[in-house]
Amino acid sequence: MKMLYQGKTKDIYDKGDGNYLLKFKDDVTGTDGVFDPGANTVGLSIEGAGRAGLKLTKMFFEKINQAGIATHFVDADIENATMTVKPAEVFGKGVEVILRYKAVGSFYRRYGMYCEEGQELDSYVEVTLKDDNRNDPLITDEALEMLGIMTKEEYTLLVDLTKKIGNIIKEELAKKDLELYDIKFEFGRVGADKHVALIDEISGGNMRAYRGSEYIEPLALEKIMLAE
Amino acid sequence: MKMLYQGKTKDIYDKGDGNYLLKFKDDVTGTDGVFDPGANTVGLSIEGAGRAGLKLTKMFFEKINQAGIATHFVDADIENATMTVKPAEVFGKGVEVILRYKAVGSFYRRYGMYCEEGQELDSYVEVTLKDDNRNDPLITDEALEMLGIMTKEEYTLLVDLTKKIGNIIKEELAKKDLELYDIKFEFGRVGADKHVALIDEISGGNMRAYRGSEYIEPLALEKIMLAE
Repeated sequence: MKMLYQGKTKDIYDKGDGNYLLKFKDDVTGTDGVFDPGANTVGLSIEGAGRAGLKLTKMFFEKINQAGIATHFVDADIENATMTVKPAEVFGKGVEVILRYKAVGSFYRRYGMYCEEGQELDSYVEVTLKDDNRNDPLITDEALEMLGIMTKEEYTLLVDLTKKIGNIIKEELAKKDLELYDIKFEFGRVGADKHVALIDEISGGNMRAYRGSEYIEPLALEKIMLAE
Repeated sequence: MKMLYQGKTKDIYDKGDGNYLLKFKDDVTGTDGVFDPGANTVGLSIEGAGRAGLKLTKMFFEKINQAGIATHFVDADIENATMTVKPAEVFGKGVEVILRYKAVGSFYRRYGMYCEEGQELDSYVEVTLKDDNRNDPLITDEALEMLGIMTKEEYTLLVDLTKKIGNIIKEELAKKDLELYDIKFEFGRVGADKHVALIDEISGGNMRAYRGSEYIEPLALEKIMLAE
């Protein structure tokens, strides 16, 4: 299989049958050997991290597909840490969609003059550009359209899908007594009709979850969610 | 008269007759003695800077009022560098509205992956919070509403007024062979009906203008605009 892209935590291959293969690696992002899901560099390698992330991704993607929401997911091979997906075209050079239920992280850092840390937010959605050199800047729907990254119609759909998907994940976490504070997604255009669909992965590193007042770090979160 | 607020470049007094008085100072923002309209500290004092800024502000506010657009402007006393205005309530603790005709400054720094420096923009409007400690962060209409800073209706009106006011100023500059690249405004709620109105000032430091490929610094811009 031809490798199309070598990522920080995943490699992408062309299966040759119209689908792509994502290989989940045990490398996780971080700085100086400390795991940090928000970091833009590979910090360390953790045995089994790839398979755990894939397992959770598979569980969530199956639930999202069942809810009738389009994703790129086809199937997953946990043993080999690979996921078969439909090819997707990203928006511009890639954007991240962040859904916030609580004012924490970069939202609180930006708007701390107007909110308390941890304050409730009403499913607030924002889009940032994937651009390591410019610290993933926030961008408005107006600018996304003006710079040819996505249309207003795509933006509206993406916000709607994000809230629906977030609800599914929030409810799954609640079953394990976990509270979802925020989560980031990636979307792309899939199929001949280029419909907006959820892509990439949904693993522990994509979200911030708490049990009571205790932050649950990504690998622990995956363990809790995947326990029978 | 009672001083209500001591600002970096203006002081505000209560006239006691229902209006406020803005006193334009000769202090200009900058760093280490160098004038920089974007700076958050007073850098130096320039003899006559207050009166020149007020003259230009008066000229623009009169034109904007004539166009039927609400402002807080009542009248100006150039000799004493004071402007009488209607009291206004700012949005939250103050926001800045930026109108961009060219991709320069913070827009280019944020979105340089998707544009060339100086590229045309189609009257792009964005809002930032006035918050020196957080570097005046960009904020979306959604977040403005969620944090109780302004309603969606106010935002829509503000964007519309910004484009109309920008056009007036762009045309005035064009008469002097100057091209407006971007400009920042402040708006507030004025009167018993709390209608959205342009407030603060419109002087050289509010805008970025070029003559051909040459950047015209704020004080030179004021001189050109005020010459008979």
